[in-house]
Amino acid sequence: MGTEAIIYNQRGQLSILDQLLLPNQTVYVRIGDVEDGWKAIFQMQVRGAPAIGIVGSLSLVVDLNNQEFDTKSMLNTYLATKLTYLVSARPTAVNMKWCADVLLKLSAELKDCDEVSVAEMKEQIMSMAESFLEKDIEINKKMGMFGANHILERNDKSLRILTHCNTGSLATGGYGTALGVIRTLHNMGRLLHAYCTETRPYNQGSRLTAYELMQDDIPSTLVCDNMCAALMKNWTIDGIFLGADRVVANGDTANKIGTYQLAVLAKYHNVPFYVVAPSSSIDLNMSTGDEIVIEERPATEITHMNGIRVTPKGINCWNPAFDVTPARLITGGIVTEFGVFTPSELNTELSTHLK
Amino acid sequence: MGTEAIIYNQRGQLSILDQLLLPNQTVYVRIGDVEDGWKAIFQMQVRGAPAIGIVGSLSLVVDLNNQEFDTKSMLNTYLATKLTYLVSARPTAVNMKWCADVLLKLSAELKDCDEVSVAEMKEQIMSMAESFLEKDIEINKKMGMFGANHILERNDKSLRILTHCNTGSLATGGYGTALGVIRTLHNMGRLLHAYCTETRPYNQGSRLTAYELMQDDIPSTLVCDNMCAALMKNWTIDGIFLGADRVVANGDTANKIGTYQLAVLAKYHNVPFYVVAPSSSIDLNMSTGDEIVIEERPATEITHMNGIRVTPKGINCWNPAFDVTPARLITGGIVTEFGVFTPSELNTELSTHLK
Repeated sequence: MGTEAIIYNQRGQLSILDQLLLPNQTVYVRIGDVEDGWKAIFQMQVRGAPAIGIVGSLSLVVDLNNQEFDTKSMLNTYLATKLTYLVSARPTAVNMKWCADVLLKLSAELKDCDEVSVAEMKEQIMSMAESFLEKDIEINKKMGMFGANHILERNDKSLRILTHCNTGSLATGGYGTALGVIRTLHNMGRLLHAYCTETRPYNQGSRLTAYELMQDDIPSTLVCDNMCAALMKNWTIDGIFLGADRVVANGDTANKIGTYQLAVLAKYHNVPFYVVAPSSSIDLNMSTGDEIVIEERPATEITHMNGIRVTPKGINCWNPAFDVTPARLITGGIVTEFGVFTPSELNTELSTHLK
Repeated sequence: MGTEAIIYNQRGQLSILDQLLLPNQTVYVRIGDVEDGWKAIFQMQVRGAPAIGIVGSLSLVVDLNNQEFDTKSMLNTYLATKLTYLVSARPTAVNMKWCADVLLKLSAELKDCDEVSVAEMKEQIMSMAESFLEKDIEINKKMGMFGANHILERNDKSLRILTHCNTGSLATGGYGTALGVIRTLHNMGRLLHAYCTETRPYNQGSRLTAYELMQDDIPSTLVCDNMCAALMKNWTIDGIFLGADRVVANGDTANKIGTYQLAVLAKYHNVPFYVVAPSSSIDLNMSTGDEIVIEERPATEITHMNGIRVTPKGINCWNPAFDVTPARLITGGIVTEFGVFTPSELNTELSTHLK
């Protein structure tokens, strides 16, 4: 199962692994309320689209656990304020928004339901928020099987798989999305080798994915982001699997910066390119990727390493955290908990399954 | 003219800027003999194909300056041994080999010429080795003009240019190859903006190119290696100029890892892709890039940053220092001191000019 990134064994007791300190230190941070949750997400002590939704939601449970409300309306208003705040911590990933929408819909229903007391309303909302963690792990295991089976139907040997950024236990409730597919292939005895990129400037690959691969004894190699074309040319890469911060209706996908570049390189080298995204990362309200807001992050992520300046003073940097990969480059498919779809099938299939 | 990387104002007195310490410290290192020269090249205190040839050759002059030889044959043998040793420090770049060949040819001629004394032979060899520095700067300025004029003939506005690795004053005798073209465009008032990549894992871009661009007040922005496709998509990049460690007869080009990847991305985005290489970097003895030996460097370049481990212990790394870009992707042209040629013209044109 890999590394435990979110510890939630008892209501009201939430700790997260501080991913900023990995791989050198394993330190857990206590999350006592929504403010702590927002900070952990904003500072990227926790990152990865599914994990952001889960930690944000659990921080709300911990917060509610210490609050009393006189009326259901007051509880509903409190929820709306806190959830809007949590969504604002990282704008590109859609999962916190997805969790917020589910919780607010439930809150609105319960508020208007006369049989439900304020205590019962609070209990149901807390239970729903708690359920996201367990459901996410189930969904990841399903996606792992769908993704692995899809590529194995097209290959009769063991596979070399490249991934980018971190989509493992650290980025999700557990197991992982794209890294979940790699784990499944490994468990099936059909993974020859996993390759992961550094994923500059935040090094989610070299710090986090490399850490998870080592912990699980998966045969693996780390490369720099500029070595991927040489890797595809010199070693046969059988597939690229990576996650998504937001997939929109036409299949266009926002994900960690460098994803679009890998998709272009994969197309040139005829390597199937897969996006692994639970339905909570899929936003059918946006029709194309042009509508996605791309978060730009501070230059210090590029200019400094472990607090030490590694570039000349005053140099300009461009530091977009994400890019958008057009659907036509997603040649392998989009792996969801309902199956693997081509980008053009996605909207219809998802709408049917989510009905 | 930028930064002074090689200080050689007086025979026998050679110092080089320690590029490992840039941009935080400006420290010059004294080179006292061939052993010092080899170490400086091997440890990458000096790097860049033309600079390697120049520093290696000057280290030989400094060395010879302290030696006496009884016979011309002894001098010739000494030279052959020392030059073979210098060539071994970095196998991929051809320039040290080019310098060695010129010096050994001269040595063989002088050895067999009865009118030349051992002292005269030593003097002529030292003068030839010293001439490489000045000639390199002249050649770079010519290439700067050829490259700038070539792209300006196809554009009537000011240009956004992307470069990779470091090809400036620090990599050459002065001025630079690809960075020389950028300097020329800037001096002509036709450079809108220069973009440079970090160039992982050694950060020649973020440490050295960014430093040179800042020193010369050239409007510029640093990006990570995985941002180049997003850069080409979101900002109009008008051309990519970069150097070469070795261009072979059919135009295939070995250069810093990531070059091949940029060429694929440039092709996809219709951005002209130029290699800037003096004839001393062109090896007509090799017919295709398949013959080029690619140096692989230690994993610690990836796993450590300023001596601090930034990846989990024990992770495998693949760290090729160079890759080979096939000639068909060099869509802008190969810029030499004789003009700008398509890869298919290169062999004939160079053979004619070098006759």
